[in-house]
Amino acid sequence: MSSVYLDHAAATALDPRVLAAMLPYFADHFGNPQSFYALGARTKEAIEQSRQQVAQLVNARPEEIIFTSSGTESNNLALKGIALANQDKGKHIIVSSIEHVSVLNVARTLSRHGFEVTFLPVDRTGRVDPARLKSGIRSDTILISVLTANNEVGTVQPIAEIGRIARAARVPFHTDAVAAAGTIPLDAAALGVDALTLTAQNFYGPKGAAALALRQGIRLQGQIEGGGQEHNRRAGTENVPAIVGLGKAAELARAEMTERAVHLQRLRDRLIAELPRRIERVYLTGHPTQRLPGHASFCVEFIEGEAMLLFLDDEGIAAASGSACTSRALKASHVLLAMGYDHALAQGSLMLTLGPGNRDEDVTALLDKLPPIVARLRSMSPLYAKYLKDPQGHDRRQMEEKVCTARK
Amino acid sequence: MSSVYLDHAAATALDPRVLAAMLPYFADHFGNPQSFYALGARTKEAIEQSRQQVAQLVNARPEEIIFTSSGTESNNLALKGIALANQDKGKHIIVSSIEHVSVLNVARTLSRHGFEVTFLPVDRTGRVDPARLKSGIRSDTILISVLTANNEVGTVQPIAEIGRIARAARVPFHTDAVAAAGTIPLDAAALGVDALTLTAQNFYGPKGAAALALRQGIRLQGQIEGGGQEHNRRAGTENVPAIVGLGKAAELARAEMTERAVHLQRLRDRLIAELPRRIERVYLTGHPTQRLPGHASFCVEFIEGEAMLLFLDDEGIAAASGSACTSRALKASHVLLAMGYDHALAQGSLMLTLGPGNRDEDVTALLDKLPPIVARLRSMSPLYAKYLKDPQGHDRRQMEEKVCTARK
Repeated sequence: MSSVYLDHAAATALDPRVLAAMLPYFADHFGNPQSFYALGARTKEAIEQSRQQVAQLVNARPEEIIFTSSGTESNNLALKGIALANQDKGKHIIVSSIEHVSVLNVARTLSRHGFEVTFLPVDRTGRVDPARLKSGIRSDTILISVLTANNEVGTVQPIAEIGRIARAARVPFHTDAVAAAGTIPLDAAALGVDALTLTAQNFYGPKGAAALALRQGIRLQGQIEGGGQEHNRRAGTENVPAIVGLGKAAELARAEMTERAVHLQRLRDRLIAELPRRIERVYLTGHPTQRLPGHASFCVEFIEGEAMLLFLDDEGIAAASGSACTSRALKASHVLLAMGYDHALAQGSLMLTLGPGNRDEDVTALLDKLPPIVARLRSMSPLYAKYLKDPQGHDRRQMEEKVCTARK
Repeated sequence: MSSVYLDHAAATALDPRVLAAMLPYFADHFGNPQSFYALGARTKEAIEQSRQQVAQLVNARPEEIIFTSSGTESNNLALKGIALANQDKGKHIIVSSIEHVSVLNVARTLSRHGFEVTFLPVDRTGRVDPARLKSGIRSDTILISVLTANNEVGTVQPIAEIGRIARAARVPFHTDAVAAAGTIPLDAAALGVDALTLTAQNFYGPKGAAALALRQGIRLQGQIEGGGQEHNRRAGTENVPAIVGLGKAAELARAEMTERAVHLQRLRDRLIAELPRRIERVYLTGHPTQRLPGHASFCVEFIEGEAMLLFLDDEGIAAASGSACTSRALKASHVLLAMGYDHALAQGSLMLTLGPGNRDEDVTALLDKLPPIVARLRSMSPLYAKYLKDPQGHDRRQMEEKVCTARK
């Protein structure tokens, strides 16, 4: 088993304080919150308390919180729900090109059902250009979806600016804040965000617990239909322990956000500073400063990410390459490609995402173990051999082809 | 808090053995099953083990199991997924009129999108007539959905006969087995079922854990889109503890089904035999023999269900009236109305659903506490006063109006 866990973007261990808050709701306070008796009233109260805790985390109102089962479900609900409910006003949608697949794939599905989708490009650091977004808004634009921070490269978007533009144009603005909520301060009201996706997993809450914060007045067509739960916006018997866990995790994230960020940022900055010193031709991906506190991501040239992960696993280190949800697909990350990286370099993607349990020893372990792995893999690489014979020629070709322009 | 819990159809306490199986997956084996390292492989294995356990419970193949977050979600996936994927063959759907709201509301939504829906009537015991179903199948029928057992009246449908008819007509057959799976033997292959909805809650597993068993070869359009989880049929990071709990609960339900049924049936039969002896004008609803082992349901004449529940709660007894998901809506049950009950009598619906923790004392408590509650409520009822003055006249009027024809 991995003893050094550096893949908090993919999954996190449940905070024991959150588990403790959930435990009474499995077998003691187990009543259906829709029922009439005291046992049901107790769980109903617990759900409403969680709604407040989640609302406070992102400065929304409790009644604006819709509980769902995953960030993917929240993104589906936001995109399909807002698009379908507002199609009388127009059928044009704008999404960034580095959204999570649950946004991109839904946007593609909508485009097969009469909607027109504009995929906003990003720059070499993974940022959307607000001016470009503004000029892309049309009279029939009914939804803008730009993620708060990207899971793969850690880049944080200029959400406040995007929110101002969306609000001035009176276009509903959804942000997938899965990677950001609970980690960096988010004020949906101040940021002009109309719909915000978050999951408990990102801040050490349970799997299967997520929400969509939907500003009052935004029309939404529910996607999972049935009973009247979540004010008719998401049917299904409430998953009470998961909802309680989400609320508790939100409360803790809010209380400890600064302290956690300081810890994560210090470790992250060590990785960002030292890894390129230990290994040649390693490049930071994403924005150098506007990035998530626990997120360090790189491209290691002449390497395939998967091989690197397997060797790291042998050394007891868990890391990732590309998006967690699609990493088994072994495709080059759509995020890095959208940022202008070529396929070869994007293959060498390495994501190191930190959590509160990580210590300096973990960073040291990675810094010690990775260089020999990279050396070994490169020794088998014909591309690397070619590079060694003619480094200047390699670089000249790269410059000419404008590949990998996002280097430090 | 309720000390006598007779509402297992609405929610159940998690079996401590299931919780024990889940616990390691919260904070120890927490890896993302889509990841490359050992920590992820461990959770991937746990998911595949659960898939086998669930498949065995209903005699499906492991690869036919799609994990979802609720019975409602599974029903949405089955109906929308099969309808949308097969609409090139036709747009006619048949559902029974006593389905759960998650089937009925989705059917209504589909009918607003070009599909034609036939709502099959049921008899006074809540059963679908297979001959009537057969004659309703058309060349453009692409889906039949009839629940295995009804949550409100406990009636079990002639699923094998329906399956034979559907198979002969080559129409995909979905059954919402939420109330039945894990409680009565279900063999999807032998019954001719193509899609089967089940939830862990019904057999003492966790909330937020459900599945759709979909026979290989049945075309389905995924509803929650994003990553490639569940073979591209249901996106979103897997809720590992919930899935593990569903599997363990399925394993236990299979092993202990007979023993549990004997226990439940004995208590149920005491309620069915004794309640009408203790209170006049109480009628069993649903089928007298083809019913779920732990399910006793009645109509108490001249009473409103809600008032009865509140007084029972005061006595520490948790019971239900109408469907759990809509009971706050205070409408007369669509199930009882479809069975031919009039609004007045349907209002007096009482559901007593038993679980493994119930003992004879619980049944005795209900039998002792309910009669004075009913007497007190009836003493305030003008309808009851009218009845007392002229019982024969009341019954004559009822016979004439053919209300409540499902009496014992």
